[in-house]
Amino acid sequence: MGVLYNQVADKLQALIQEGVYRDGDRLPGVRVLSRQFGVSISTVLQAHQTLEGRGYLQARERSGYFVKLPALDAPEPVMRRHRSRPVPVSAREMTLELCADEQKRMVPLATAIPHPDYLPLRQIQQCTLWAARRGLETLDYAFPGKECFRRQIAQRMATLGVPITPDDVLATNGAQEAIILALRAVTQPGDIVAVESPSFPGILQALEVVGLKVIEIPTHPAEGLSLEGLELALEQWPLKACVVVTNHSNPMGARMSDERKKQLVSMLAAANVPLIEDDIYGDLHHIGDRPRPAKAFDRTDNVIYCSSFSKTISPGLRLGWMVPGRHMASARQHKYFVNLATSSIPQMAVAHFLEQGGYDRYLRTARQHYREGAERMRAAVSRAFPEGTAVSRPQGGFVLWVQLPEAVSGTEIYQQARAEDINVAPGLMFSTTNKFENCLRINTANPWSERIEHAVMRLGSLVKASMTQVE
Amino acid sequence: MGVLYNQVADKLQALIQEGVYRDGDRLPGVRVLSRQFGVSISTVLQAHQTLEGRGYLQARERSGYFVKLPALDAPEPVMRRHRSRPVPVSAREMTLELCADEQKRMVPLATAIPHPDYLPLRQIQQCTLWAARRGLETLDYAFPGKECFRRQIAQRMATLGVPITPDDVLATNGAQEAIILALRAVTQPGDIVAVESPSFPGILQALEVVGLKVIEIPTHPAEGLSLEGLELALEQWPLKACVVVTNHSNPMGARMSDERKKQLVSMLAAANVPLIEDDIYGDLHHIGDRPRPAKAFDRTDNVIYCSSFSKTISPGLRLGWMVPGRHMASARQHKYFVNLATSSIPQMAVAHFLEQGGYDRYLRTARQHYREGAERMRAAVSRAFPEGTAVSRPQGGFVLWVQLPEAVSGTEIYQQARAEDINVAPGLMFSTTNKFENCLRINTANPWSERIEHAVMRLGSLVKASMTQVE
Repeated sequence: MGVLYNQVADKLQALIQEGVYRDGDRLPGVRVLSRQFGVSISTVLQAHQTLEGRGYLQARERSGYFVKLPALDAPEPVMRRHRSRPVPVSAREMTLELCADEQKRMVPLATAIPHPDYLPLRQIQQCTLWAARRGLETLDYAFPGKECFRRQIAQRMATLGVPITPDDVLATNGAQEAIILALRAVTQPGDIVAVESPSFPGILQALEVVGLKVIEIPTHPAEGLSLEGLELALEQWPLKACVVVTNHSNPMGARMSDERKKQLVSMLAAANVPLIEDDIYGDLHHIGDRPRPAKAFDRTDNVIYCSSFSKTISPGLRLGWMVPGRHMASARQHKYFVNLATSSIPQMAVAHFLEQGGYDRYLRTARQHYREGAERMRAAVSRAFPEGTAVSRPQGGFVLWVQLPEAVSGTEIYQQARAEDINVAPGLMFSTTNKFENCLRINTANPWSERIEHAVMRLGSLVKASMTQVE
Repeated sequence: MGVLYNQVADKLQALIQEGVYRDGDRLPGVRVLSRQFGVSISTVLQAHQTLEGRGYLQARERSGYFVKLPALDAPEPVMRRHRSRPVPVSAREMTLELCADEQKRMVPLATAIPHPDYLPLRQIQQCTLWAARRGLETLDYAFPGKECFRRQIAQRMATLGVPITPDDVLATNGAQEAIILALRAVTQPGDIVAVESPSFPGILQALEVVGLKVIEIPTHPAEGLSLEGLELALEQWPLKACVVVTNHSNPMGARMSDERKKQLVSMLAAANVPLIEDDIYGDLHHIGDRPRPAKAFDRTDNVIYCSSFSKTISPGLRLGWMVPGRHMASARQHKYFVNLATSSIPQMAVAHFLEQGGYDRYLRTARQHYREGAERMRAAVSRAFPEGTAVSRPQGGFVLWVQLPEAVSGTEIYQQARAEDINVAPGLMFSTTNKFENCLRINTANPWSERIEHAVMRLGSLVKASMTQVE
């Protein structure tokens, strides 16, 4: 059911975006569309409501549905070109504050954590019950990871074009730990590492833990890391690693094309600089096929692949993995030194979930939710925020990157919003040098509600008020 | 039942150790003892068998039981007095090898991991099933730890003389992570940290991860860390922390008395050097009451308490905790940076286990097993190893520290034993400067078996052969 009306909505949306139906056009009647798409009338009505939610249709009483493009369909942000120097990373505490606030029942637009309604709770309960009944295995040290878990990962990686064996997989406490182990394997404290800009704060925190300097590479909101920017950095600085979220990166939702991934991999291989790939959002593409990781194009064992189930199955599992390639010995040793192994029961539960096919079934629904959530939020922000606002159009994941008019401080909006129990992530979190002061990141993985709609309107009003003050 | 015959055996053993019965004495008949202790004859017989197993009695056909002290009741090792200089810690890979070997079904005398028979498997399964049915809570980020878990920990800590609230507890991936977070909170890379000598290898690995230098303080096999040695080090070096396993330390099983703990705490407080206390074996005392942690004597918030359920409930849970006191903000931030949180389900399962009283019930049995295992192994080593061997007499935990005659290389014995599928830990693992080359550590947490008895005899033969070669 859900799949069917969404398919109809997608087709209609495509017709609108391609200009077949223009702003103000009346859509054909429900009976016509019912015949046209070979679906029931109720399915057509559901599709209409979906498109209304996405901000493409407007119902007029007794007249039917009309195309109604958002009054302001915000443009996408442009890439900020900047020249950076390597700087040490330190004291990035704000994410802690954000997490704590969300626990206090603020409107949860700040963290990149899905609403529990979108997580496969029942399935994971079933799989945990299964795991708990497995007996002794649950109490063993799972170093370097439960075999059943590593086997499932190896099977999935093969479908992504990365043919590996279970022995190539190291289980970790989330992708965060995987990235730290990868950094430790290929760097020494004080080394310089290139990251996207804006960058996921966890990556900056990982660099801080290992004592590294960061150089921020301009990143395109749709195409991802600027290869030209990276080339320049490679010429100028003795980079020891490059950390990239290749698919639906956080915060901008950029996805590198296969062509650009190939270029990235070969450019870094030629420079003998390891690529640490974080593919945590790879399974959450909104449309089309699951994008390949850069690791699929790695011919020289120069890519360390990291991922996790924190954005899909649940953050509470704390379960990720890495494929460290030739750095396996170092990664294993460090993993053993820092906490010996990853908890056994979550690994067994997730292995069972994957093996039974439940994960793939769940992903189909989750992707639809995240796509709709992103589109609806994008439409809401377009309506609520003033002209001069740009909003990313992510191809996956569940965050939006909102670029406010130049003079507006995202940090001030963040602080004002907190006072109204609205939690949103200010742009300064995503850089060491506050390049994104006029930006906000908004979590779109929440069931739509009046409370959220109101929060977005309030955010827009705060931005408008801020502009008035500036003038 | 089990408790009763063990109580009788304990009383008889005490009489033997106090010299009431001497080597060669015939014990009173079973009927006499039955009356004397107010127990059944079968209980007396079980007590006799227990003492025979411990190596204190010998049955002579038709004559009854005679006191038979081990042909060689090995002495306890003496403390090695040494002067150390701070050295960097690096590449301590051997523990990895040991773990991997034990997975290959060698005789498991090397790692400090209890045999699965001694773990509360059924209870943890039940508690995991309970946790899995709790719903959404299992999927939440558990930062800084599940409230139910932290509350149970706070309650237990109060009974140990450490009155804290749940907010004072940080859940960690085992004690290993807790120690690293503590070290990060109070040191900078390059700083000097004092540890016991011999020292638990995980502590040396933690120092390596944080980039610290170590100074090894002589440690008495029964009384623990030498306070005189520590005083000397405090005078000579700018120590930034001191890491001590205060109760039943690994590898020697030493337990500091309350008096010595008080001195340790006040000495470090006066020097303004934080004490990082690892109390992972505290619950596994063989006799008497649960010893207090040094934290119970901490009046100046200078002790960071670390512990875990890895040695009691199961290493596969990867669940520990810390009480960082005034270093909570730093510890929390670092925890968040390295892996965000500890897995939720294990915390909920353990909280339930504690709340229901199952953990305390389980501990009573486990302590008995570990006590018997240590005594039996001590007797077996005394019989099998040559004169000149000294064996620790631990008051808790489940490892023995065996000091071989001076000229024997524990590393060679380890290598020769590996060739015969016997896994034992060589002394060199327990120091950065190989002060304990003629030592071995033996895991006693295995159900006694012919295979183990044979392995101990083979180890003794290898040591004897090694001595012949030396001569």
